[in-house]
Amino acid sequence: MDMKRNLTMLTDFYEISMAGGYFEEGLKDREAVFDMFFRTVPDGGGFAIFAGLEQLIEYIKDLHFTTDDIAFLREKNMFSEQFLDYLRGFHFTSDVYAVPEGTVVFPGEPIVTVKGPVIEAQLVETMILLTVNHQSLIATKANRIVRAAEGRTVFEFGSRRAQGYDAAILGARAAYIGGCDGTACVIADREYEIPSVGTMAHSWVQLFDNEYEAFKTYARRYPHNCSLLVDTYNTLKSGVPNAIRVFDEVLGPMGIRPAGIRIDSGDIAYLSKKARKMLDEAGYSDVKIMASNSLDEYIIRDLLLQDAKVDLFGVGECLITSKSSPVFGGVYKLVAAQDEHGALQPKIKISESVEKITTPCFKRLYRIYNQDGKAQADYIALADEQVEGKTDISLFDPIATYKKKTFHDVRIQCIQQPIFQKGQLVYQLPDLKKIRAHCMAEVDSLWDEVKRFENPHRYYVDLSQALWDEKQRLLNAYGESR
Amino acid sequence: MDMKRNLTMLTDFYEISMAGGYFEEGLKDREAVFDMFFRTVPDGGGFAIFAGLEQLIEYIKDLHFTTDDIAFLREKNMFSEQFLDYLRGFHFTSDVYAVPEGTVVFPGEPIVTVKGPVIEAQLVETMILLTVNHQSLIATKANRIVRAAEGRTVFEFGSRRAQGYDAAILGARAAYIGGCDGTACVIADREYEIPSVGTMAHSWVQLFDNEYEAFKTYARRYPHNCSLLVDTYNTLKSGVPNAIRVFDEVLGPMGIRPAGIRIDSGDIAYLSKKARKMLDEAGYSDVKIMASNSLDEYIIRDLLLQDAKVDLFGVGECLITSKSSPVFGGVYKLVAAQDEHGALQPKIKISESVEKITTPCFKRLYRIYNQDGKAQADYIALADEQVEGKTDISLFDPIATYKKKTFHDVRIQCIQQPIFQKGQLVYQLPDLKKIRAHCMAEVDSLWDEVKRFENPHRYYVDLSQALWDEKQRLLNAYGESR
Repeated sequence: MDMKRNLTMLTDFYEISMAGGYFEEGLKDREAVFDMFFRTVPDGGGFAIFAGLEQLIEYIKDLHFTTDDIAFLREKNMFSEQFLDYLRGFHFTSDVYAVPEGTVVFPGEPIVTVKGPVIEAQLVETMILLTVNHQSLIATKANRIVRAAEGRTVFEFGSRRAQGYDAAILGARAAYIGGCDGTACVIADREYEIPSVGTMAHSWVQLFDNEYEAFKTYARRYPHNCSLLVDTYNTLKSGVPNAIRVFDEVLGPMGIRPAGIRIDSGDIAYLSKKARKMLDEAGYSDVKIMASNSLDEYIIRDLLLQDAKVDLFGVGECLITSKSSPVFGGVYKLVAAQDEHGALQPKIKISESVEKITTPCFKRLYRIYNQDGKAQADYIALADEQVEGKTDISLFDPIATYKKKTFHDVRIQCIQQPIFQKGQLVYQLPDLKKIRAHCMAEVDSLWDEVKRFENPHRYYVDLSQALWDEKQRLLNAYGESR
Repeated sequence: MDMKRNLTMLTDFYEISMAGGYFEEGLKDREAVFDMFFRTVPDGGGFAIFAGLEQLIEYIKDLHFTTDDIAFLREKNMFSEQFLDYLRGFHFTSDVYAVPEGTVVFPGEPIVTVKGPVIEAQLVETMILLTVNHQSLIATKANRIVRAAEGRTVFEFGSRRAQGYDAAILGARAAYIGGCDGTACVIADREYEIPSVGTMAHSWVQLFDNEYEAFKTYARRYPHNCSLLVDTYNTLKSGVPNAIRVFDEVLGPMGIRPAGIRIDSGDIAYLSKKARKMLDEAGYSDVKIMASNSLDEYIIRDLLLQDAKVDLFGVGECLITSKSSPVFGGVYKLVAAQDEHGALQPKIKISESVEKITTPCFKRLYRIYNQDGKAQADYIALADEQVEGKTDISLFDPIATYKKKTFHDVRIQCIQQPIFQKGQLVYQLPDLKKIRAHCMAEVDSLWDEVKRFENPHRYYVDLSQALWDEKQRLLNAYGESR
């Protein structure tokens, strides 16, 4: 497959300098546990959609340094031949846990965990963050836009404004996971079977002597996929009348129903209502109206509040770059490491801001559902605590600890999956349609209050008593040494 | 080279449906001219930096449809075997003009022009826009950040927050063009010889029993590249004192000067001043202080206004995503096309907003320099007008036409280059260091007023009388048909 590249060297330089240090100090096989988590949801939303696991798996499976890579590193005059030999034979032997793609996730949760020799667990940091941050960003944004469209079709149209080729291709993939119905990006269809769609640009209309000729030619050529772009000259005076004329003259005699019209400029609310009326009066009430012009979830919500008659939305730059919030701030932190006696010790990263203090230890992430299948809270416990099977559970706020809540008759489910065990892939990747369906089901499991675009209800993400105690112990130990 | 992919299918679906239409209608060889231009500068800046040409050239050189691509398109049941045969044998035979990478460009200017059979010129739209929009966005942002740093070193540190792999790799390339001094991204070094840098993460410090041990180990391992991350526990009480102790104990006896310290959190202005004082008093006034924590041009400017003692800036997410303005809105519009008699006719795209009306015709872009080498204005003329060689020129504002200005004793230079002629590459790609130096010289040629971050002076981009007349003729013809 000519789309595969070896991305082993797509890493920050410090991952390699640290690896060299661990190797030379005899620390390379000391076991460490790293968590990837994020601190805030883009756009001030109430939750994010996890995506990118498939590409992360491909990267880890393919991890190896080529002869060229070794030669390149040798020229840095920083690394010993022993270390370069080690890299030449490098293969990944660690455990990886992650939530499945399409899963709803919240700040502070371990969404990817790597447990293994520190040299390996450190080396994969950059690519884990890059892969998951990007696709989670776009899936999260797409889901907001799809929810704003309230069941109407949403297509991803952003390739030309994407931040690079992968941003277009994998962005289309993430947008599909988040709920988009298709993409304009042909290669995303070929690679990931995301339905690709598209008809004509303004240049098509301009190339002909007039709009009517342009439409007629297109309709004859593609009668089964006939969606006409009506805003090149004047949407209501020229575009829609010419479209109706061509529907009548070309498709009518063929007995084929037209697909639709597309409006790409002007006042979409006004134009779509007028166009709808004209189409209905001409007997084309089944013909769809698509809108596409710098749309995002806020503009779509406004359009629908104004009763715009739009059936399909084509969303470009605001989706493919998550323009209003273009960074997913996932981080990757050491949470435990073996001491010199081989015992796994919890590790904490202190910060002056309380929210930036990490949660130590090798952990498990659970979701608590009520009898209706609604997600009530998430619960993070030590990996060896027995949590599943319980039907009653008491939670407390990890900062305002006096705030307590007990849930009865609930189902508690670990939402992480083992992905690699000792370097072997043990996870069966679902196909993309299943991932997308999983995402839809996950979002359905949330209360509406969590799904608000602005000021959503903060979903509970609480710690087990044992984990909370361990974190306090480390904080106190740090405080005393200050 | 394992980084090469065939991106022919990275295109919007409508490019292929239009291509099919042109083919079947016998229009495929009708000559057309398309311009890429943009309407506004990101971040409200006064100019942009053009980048991405090298990747655009690679794409065009490699344009071909594979057997798999053809099979994929056949399954759409939209295209004839004749058209699929044509695609199988497709190769690019058009002319391409562009400004060199690193060139300063302004809204409304033809920065890439394609002239050739409409089927080809249309097909490359998506990739031209994607490639140039992305790298120009990042080069433009990087240049703002580098200017804010006022001669201090700026490193690109954003891979982990980039929007996909190419955004990390080609983003590092664009950032280097814009003036960054290096990157953390190793593969960008291997592929493009951008100096890669980096030392340690907090996890290195955490893995050892204490900060002193972590620093000492690092200094012994990498004495010639010893920059220590001092904010894991407490920058001033622990980090800087431990760094100084290790500089004294490990590097002093080796006769090696330490490289620096890095501060990644907290109040950079305060901490850097205190740390500078401590280093100076310990005899390390040559040791550099690096800062890195969600920096951008505004924060760097503020830090320097507060007299922060920072010698190097590591800039991450705000640069690699151009966070405050993450879209470069380049568009690609038909400006001329052959009529049925073979004559090239100008084409205009009308819009209700005056700024969105395109400038028709096959054109040339000139820059007017005064005797000091300062850029005074840009000038767009018909391709066959004689402009070069003139030393006096009169300009007028294309909208407020009564605003006129005459320049004397100027040098007028065409800033576009022929890149492909009849499909053959005729352009000698400069190496990346030369592109970066060209960018620096270009920015130096601008008046300070154009370089302001906020409310910059609007640089003149005027049309020749003949071009303006032609545009008015088409507008009037359209107005009469309304």
